[in-house]
Amino acid sequence: MFHHVKELQFNARVSRPDPRFATLLLEQFGGANGELKAAMQYFVQAFSARQPYPDKYDLLMDIATEEFSHLEIVGATITMLLTGVNGELKDAAEQSDLMRLLKGKSEREQLIEEAATGPQFLVLSGGGPAVTNSQGVPWSGSYVNANGELSVDLRSDIAAEARAKIVYEYLMQFTDDPFVKESLAFLMTREVAHMQMFTAALESIKPNFPPGVLQGDPRYTHTYFNMSNGRSSRGPWNQGQGPWGPGESWEFIADPVQEVMQTQGNTQLPIKGTNQKPEEVARFNKQQSQLRSQEVNQAIAKQQNPWSFSGKP
Amino acid sequence: MFHHVKELQFNARVSRPDPRFATLLLEQFGGANGELKAAMQYFVQAFSARQPYPDKYDLLMDIATEEFSHLEIVGATITMLLTGVNGELKDAAEQSDLMRLLKGKSEREQLIEEAATGPQFLVLSGGGPAVTNSQGVPWSGSYVNANGELSVDLRSDIAAEARAKIVYEYLMQFTDDPFVKESLAFLMTREVAHMQMFTAALESIKPNFPPGVLQGDPRYTHTYFNMSNGRSSRGPWNQGQGPWGPGESWEFIADPVQEVMQTQGNTQLPIKGTNQKPEEVARFNKQQSQLRSQEVNQAIAKQQNPWSFSGKP
Amino acid sequence: MFHHVKELQFNARVSRPDPRFATLLLEQFGGANGELKAAMQYFVQAFSARQPYPDKYDLLMDIATEEFSHLEIVGATITMLLTGVNGELKDAAEQSDLMRLLKGKSEREQLIEEAATGPQFLVLSGGGPAVTNSQGVPWSGSYVNANGELSVDLRSDIAAEARAKIVYEYLMQFTDDPFVKESLAFLMTREVAHMQMFTAALESIKPNFPPGVLQGDPRYTHTYFNMSNGRSSRGPWNQGQGPWGPGESWEFIADPVQEVMQTQGNTQLPIKGTNQKPEEVARFNKQQSQLRSQEVNQAIAKQQNPWSFSGKP
Amino acid sequence: MFHHVKELQFNARVSRPDPRFATLLLEQFGGANGELKAAMQYFVQAFSARQPYPDKYDLLMDIATEEFSHLEIVGATITMLLTGVNGELKDAAEQSDLMRLLKGKSEREQLIEEAATGPQFLVLSGGGPAVTNSQGVPWSGSYVNANGELSVDLRSDIAAEARAKIVYEYLMQFTDDPFVKESLAFLMTREVAHMQMFTAALESIKPNFPPGVLQGDPRYTHTYFNMSNGRSSRGPWNQGQGPWGPGESWEFIADPVQEVMQTQGNTQLPIKGTNQKPEEVARFNKQQSQLRSQEVNQAIAKQQNPWSFSGKP
Amino acid sequence: MFHHVKELQFNARVSRPDPRFATLLLEQFGGANGELKAAMQYFVQAFSARQPYPDKYDLLMDIATEEFSHLEIVGATITMLLTGVNGELKDAAEQSDLMRLLKGKSEREQLIEEAATGPQFLVLSGGGPAVTNSQGVPWSGSYVNANGELSVDLRSDIAAEARAKIVYEYLMQFTDDPFVKESLAFLMTREVAHMQMFTAALESIKPNFPPGVLQGDPRYTHTYFNMSNGRSSRGPWNQGQGPWGPGESWEFIADPVQEVMQTQGNTQLPIKGTNQKPEEVARFNKQQSQLRSQEVNQAIAKQQNPWSFSGKP
Amino acid sequence: MFHHVKELQFNARVSRPDPRFATLLLEQFGGANGELKAAMQYFVQAFSARQPYPDKYDLLMDIATEEFSHLEIVGATITMLLTGVNGELKDAAEQSDLMRLLKGKSEREQLIEEAATGPQFLVLSGGGPAVTNSQGVPWSGSYVNANGELSVDLRSDIAAEARAKIVYEYLMQFTDDPFVKESLAFLMTREVAHMQMFTAALESIKPNFPPGVLQGDPRYTHTYFNMSNGRSSRGPWNQGQGPWGPGESWEFIADPVQEVMQTQGNTQLPIKGTNQKPEEVARFNKQQSQLRSQEVNQAIAKQQNPWSFSGKP
Repeated sequence: MFHHVKELQFNARVSRPDPRFATLLLEQFGGANGELKAAMQYFVQAFSARQPYPDKYDLLMDIATEEFSHLEIVGATITMLLTGVNGELKDAAEQSDLMRLLKGKSEREQLIEEAATGPQFLVLSGGGPAVTNSQGVPWSGSYVNANGELSVDLRSDIAAEARAKIVYEYLMQFTDDPFVKESLAFLMTREVAHMQMFTAALESIKPNFPPGVLQGDPRYTHTYFNMSNGRSSRGPWNQGQGPWGPGESWEFIADPVQEVMQTQGNTQLPIKGTNQKPEEVARFNKQQSQLRSQEVNQAIAKQQNPWSFSGKP
Repeated sequence: MFHHVKELQFNARVSRPDPRFATLLLEQFGGANGELKAAMQYFVQAFSARQPYPDKYDLLMDIATEEFSHLEIVGATITMLLTGVNGELKDAAEQSDLMRLLKGKSEREQLIEEAATGPQFLVLSGGGPAVTNSQGVPWSGSYVNANGELSVDLRSDIAAEARAKIVYEYLMQFTDDPFVKESLAFLMTREVAHMQMFTAALESIKPNFPPGVLQGDPRYTHTYFNMSNGRSSRGPWNQGQGPWGPGESWEFIADPVQEVMQTQGNTQLPIKGTNQKPEEVARFNKQQSQLRSQEVNQAIAKQQNPWSFSGKP
Repeated sequence: MFHHVKELQFNARVSRPDPRFATLLLEQFGGANGELKAAMQYFVQAFSARQPYPDKYDLLMDIATEEFSHLEIVGATITMLLTGVNGELKDAAEQSDLMRLLKGKSEREQLIEEAATGPQFLVLSGGGPAVTNSQGVPWSGSYVNANGELSVDLRSDIAAEARAKIVYEYLMQFTDDPFVKESLAFLMTREVAHMQMFTAALESIKPNFPPGVLQGDPRYTHTYFNMSNGRSSRGPWNQGQGPWGPGESWEFIADPVQEVMQTQGNTQLPIKGTNQKPEEVARFNKQQSQLRSQEVNQAIAKQQNPWSFSGKP
Repeated sequence: MFHHVKELQFNARVSRPDPRFATLLLEQFGGANGELKAAMQYFVQAFSARQPYPDKYDLLMDIATEEFSHLEIVGATITMLLTGVNGELKDAAEQSDLMRLLKGKSEREQLIEEAATGPQFLVLSGGGPAVTNSQGVPWSGSYVNANGELSVDLRSDIAAEARAKIVYEYLMQFTDDPFVKESLAFLMTREVAHMQMFTAALESIKPNFPPGVLQGDPRYTHTYFNMSNGRSSRGPWNQGQGPWGPGESWEFIADPVQEVMQTQGNTQLPIKGTNQKPEEVARFNKQQSQLRSQEVNQAIAKQQNPWSFSGKP
Repeated sequence: MFHHVKELQFNARVSRPDPRFATLLLEQFGGANGELKAAMQYFVQAFSARQPYPDKYDLLMDIATEEFSHLEIVGATITMLLTGVNGELKDAAEQSDLMRLLKGKSEREQLIEEAATGPQFLVLSGGGPAVTNSQGVPWSGSYVNANGELSVDLRSDIAAEARAKIVYEYLMQFTDDPFVKESLAFLMTREVAHMQMFTAALESIKPNFPPGVLQGDPRYTHTYFNMSNGRSSRGPWNQGQGPWGPGESWEFIADPVQEVMQTQGNTQLPIKGTNQKPEEVARFNKQQSQLRSQEVNQAIAKQQNPWSFSGKP
Repeated sequence: MFHHVKELQFNARVSRPDPRFATLLLEQFGGANGELKAAMQYFVQAFSARQPYPDKYDLLMDIATEEFSHLEIVGATITMLLTGVNGELKDAAEQSDLMRLLKGKSEREQLIEEAATGPQFLVLSGGGPAVTNSQGVPWSGSYVNANGELSVDLRSDIAAEARAKIVYEYLMQFTDDPFVKESLAFLMTREVAHMQMFTAALESIKPNFPPGVLQGDPRYTHTYFNMSNGRSSRGPWNQGQGPWGPGESWEFIADPVQEVMQTQGNTQLPIKGTNQKPEEVARFNKQQSQLRSQEVNQAIAKQQNPWSFSGKP
């Protein structure tokens, strides 16, 4: 269960209202890489982890809870940046005043006019945050990646944190309010710290590559298909010994169209670049399957499975 | 900020896996009337209320936090109802086994086959919940209604709780697992309790009708347009003294098409059914506007507006 | 079936084009609280009501039809506010002219430039309305709440009208065109009138609380969980005799975390604040279930169920 | 404004409940090619047409109104196909009954079980239609195509009717209820009739090709780029005199990659297959622009533009 | 399979950055009528056509591939129009610079400030295109119309090209960059050419009306329902011999409400306007069904159905 | 530009129709982790990379093109798995036949009945693929992550490939068709190979952590907030020297609520666990900003920026 503490995790402040930046900041409230996405992603991933991997469960729930706390910081900042909007809207009989503002006679009006980039603040939310991104697109459950496999989920989390980090980095360039910058720096830094945590957690799983259980088919793991014309750039991703070390190497297929014709649509492709044998892969897959499914199955009581109490009725 | 307590708010248990009911139950996890919607709705509404109406803020955040805790109960229940799916999927090299299950030779297989109504559990979430409704439609930020006006927001909340209540009532008819029913009864009852709380909070605001600040135009407040042919049902919603009491009454326009022609598109409609005068309404609107906007504006410091600490660096 | 009358229900007019306000006004055309949502919500609810509750069916269809008529008023107003856009776009070979407008040399150009907040008018709809909200988000079927239970549906309708009312109230502050204001006042007032009608209809259903059929579990109906730290606001929603009257009262759980631990996750919570007994609730539920299901079942012929004619082929 | 007639436009009936077919039929209620899409598409298109092209306005509004009437037929049929669901759900205390049904002991239960393909009927809509397609995806405003140009809009309408027709044709193969088939045949036939009407309306506009105002650039109007390898199919779409008649012809570019290299990315492509000169095109464009923009501009009074009444207050 | 050629199909260039036009141009990248929609629509339609109609398959894949190439042109143009944004964002420690730009001290800043209409370029995509329309609404798979029936699909394609054409026509009026105009003219012209191709392909199918297999019911094919009041516009779509030629004609139902009452909801409507007999229609439907299903079934090997190679392992 | 080769990149085959597996397989056609998502993600990322990082551009476009080729393989497989559906639907007058199938008298019918889990194949796509996931949810442009920063984008790509891999791994457990398994193994393996390529590309960027330009604030980079009660799991992600090596370490905040109170909302938090100084970070940020923005700015000609040709008209 959750408990709410009325203080924010970071002492968020603003120097002055700035409806336009509030609009941009929505990206981290209800956007695809924002705090709600992060919070929900780790929260949802935690359910599958709870019984088989209680240490990862703890990590995921700690960070999920921190992200909910960050969501609150972002929402509070947006609300403070919109100070004045709600009060003006309540003065409903005196539209002339707001109209004047919108026509730009005074400095204060400009603040409100700028909000025009986010019309939902004016005609919908009444000066509070909305569960949308900076362009008004509603947050979607499809932002959440949770696949019931930690070697996949933690990679999704590392990438999610990287995206959240760059969005904060971009956002910081559109405000010069030192208080807002301070909050953004805190939030951005926490994404960096979380990346380190998720990376360490991923590394503590052995093996973690390829993610999931099954190995790749050795005919296709070392092949690079050069799918475009002209000068082909070469680099450690398509030449040399690749990630495998001595004795193995990338196979660069210069003309994949011709190759497809000659190998009956890649079904006749010989194994190249590696000495791995299909039988070895099959054996490894079998062994790994057993190991991993036991790990999960044994951790979970099949009957009267209680989540948090002893389960005795 | 939020704090997480590893125990669930309710001791959720299941008697046995039931992937099909897990699918239906998703409606309350990521559906339009589910726990995430409720939690986010009250959480978002709370931002605008925090400074002008701290008592309502406290109420909204308490219930929001409880709904996040309910979301966790629902997610935990779904995960328990899917027990076995994740473990089977890890046994990736032994597909023959799962195939047999899918072809129905044993009792156990049936459980997994039934999950076919929720394919995301099998090929996407790996046996955990997904942020979708019972048909796989992703949760949307547009489910959240928050308009920065408590006399509106609390009505949205009463209706939201009513919908959540009925969905639990419907869901209870599709399981006979006594543990699951027990959890659903707890969750359903809490929606009922929240309805009472929101109703009491709405009643503590005076006046609260019409919601917002402005009164209706007296030419159109007492009129019922009979927009369809045939026998017209009459009832307290279109005849008698209505909600206004003695001296006022509903005006039933039997033939609105003819009436529109005769009143130059309702612009020439005389005031009927009420003695309210336009000037009175205008006066009241003005007074109410001033009152309400002051209420908000005075509560909010315009400069260096700190959310939770003293604001002194 | 529907019939269309070429006159609008209200004589909508505009003083001059105003593409920016047209953009805002889209909120009531294709937005979450707009006229299409209202029309479709009551229309869809009406289907389940038709046979068991013909009086409520009539009410719902009358108001649905009125809302479709309001949708037409809003669409007509948007079109009039965009006067000039379509004609300019047809002058396709003379882009220089439109470019000049966009660079602001004349008064007229400003009108079009302002439309930039709603690019769909320029590059998509060609100067007509779009089925989106003010930010271009397409209308969604998920806006419609219809649960096949009038005590729920009418509450959804009251809340929907409250939201529509406040959006009109907000919108009125962003135009000073007296004709547009007049139409908005008509539309806003009708939402107020509909609220009264739906409230009266809800009150004519006995009992209507809790919505649906089942009572709450008396262990959890009177309990308030204080889910946050610090000073707890108290009010009629968590102290005193609540809505129940003498002899009953709110139970305020000051520390719900501790309480969850002590009551085995609320499963051991004693009944407090009420004298209701579980057996009474069960008895009432049974009786009410029978009553309500008969009400519906008897009204609906199971065979050759005709909707509107005698059903004899 | 709209008026509602309580009789359906077609005497829709069902022989017996069939929740599974109700699920499929939702495709025509809230699906991408369904009746709501059609109704809204013609309704929205009508706004731009009203003043410059009152005859097309009348056509569009007549068909829009008929489609709203069809939407009602489809919704009524779905409701009748779900007969029994709502009544059972009201019997909320007697879940055992519904559970038995779900476990398949009797013929009647099968009906309800089949509804499992449409879980929203059971746990959300309570036995009424939902504004979704057959898989529960909410209807979207993006289904509506309305571009403020009749030579485009009417083509969108012809295609929309073609899609609606084929969906009815497919649907008819999944029911053997003669009453339902009869309604589907009526609805399918009306789509065919509407196609004829829209085609006739399109042909009454001269010229109507290309749609809009501007001609194509003659360098690129007659060219077919053969973008794939292997045996190239030839037909009236890439060889012969095409739609232009004697003296003009399709230019088949056998190797577009080489051609792009040789023509500096098609910027140096000579005019082939036609004798049209760029100057002629430019002249025609200018003339047509003037004509079409005048047509629209002159029809619309710029000041105090009333929609349906004389405009004199 | 696809092969990528590094050169664009058209030599797209820009004269100078223009973030505001880049925003509008997104409509053709990720919008409902844009290049991705077109590419995916023809690509998806091609799958069903591949075996029974290889010539149409070839046409659909050629144009799909061309549309993917156009998508690349549009994306490249947007990227060039945003030149400078990415570089500025990398200068992350020097926000003051970007702030100055946003406050408008220099000519260059104006370019970036204008991008405010598309905030995703600034805080999300970092100066590249996004898979959204001009208002930030994500591209949706529901834009794609593919119904497995060429006489329907080709009509959808003609309409899709018409819409794409008009959007380019509108877009051309919002830029005066000659290079951008040149690219838009190429792209617009190709839509016109594709319309001709699809029209020719549709005409090569006999019969192609009504689309699909089944004829309409002769009672309802020739009827026009006059669903609105007032002066009824008459034209070739509701009077005269219609598309059928001598001996047949439109039947204009002046008062459809009365007619519905008199014909028992249109079930008793006599055949008028045509001499077609129900038996003839039934016979034709039967014959056509056989023909069309054989056409498809015979083309597709039921066993070991290989897509592109001989199928012998 | 793209070129299409009629052969598939892999010789996809099926042993027999299997509409149910076709439904599941849609997850990789139009699902959030499917081939279209992958193809579009790398394609969109490539635009920003083209000029400053031509080697990464080449890599991204090669893999994007391969993913489009995989999309074709998946679509072809779905179509082959649906063999028979389209042909049956064309036999429109003989519904009785299809009805019999749906009632399960023969083996063949079962195939079609199973498709009921994917009703869009029957009533919408006519036996071809749809641009949706396995539950009918339309593909969304929001699936594409492209942020104009390679150190972020490549991490998004690694995670995307990991998710695609696990979905193939799950899918392989729901078919026992050896031909289908063979294709899935090829596709799954390519995701593994792409992960290696993207990892190598990310490692070739120095520095690549943190992603983007700015360092974290040293006060918050080494801190772990223990946001939940009870037994705290410790691991390399919250204890020990972490990723930094000797002399640095994780700071574990056991009670973050108390800590927030004591540090004035973390604003007074001292630097712990690292010797990094704020000035050093600021200096590094400045230097890195200059470097990175120059890298991009110098690579891009500001005037007459041609994409692929010399740019001389």
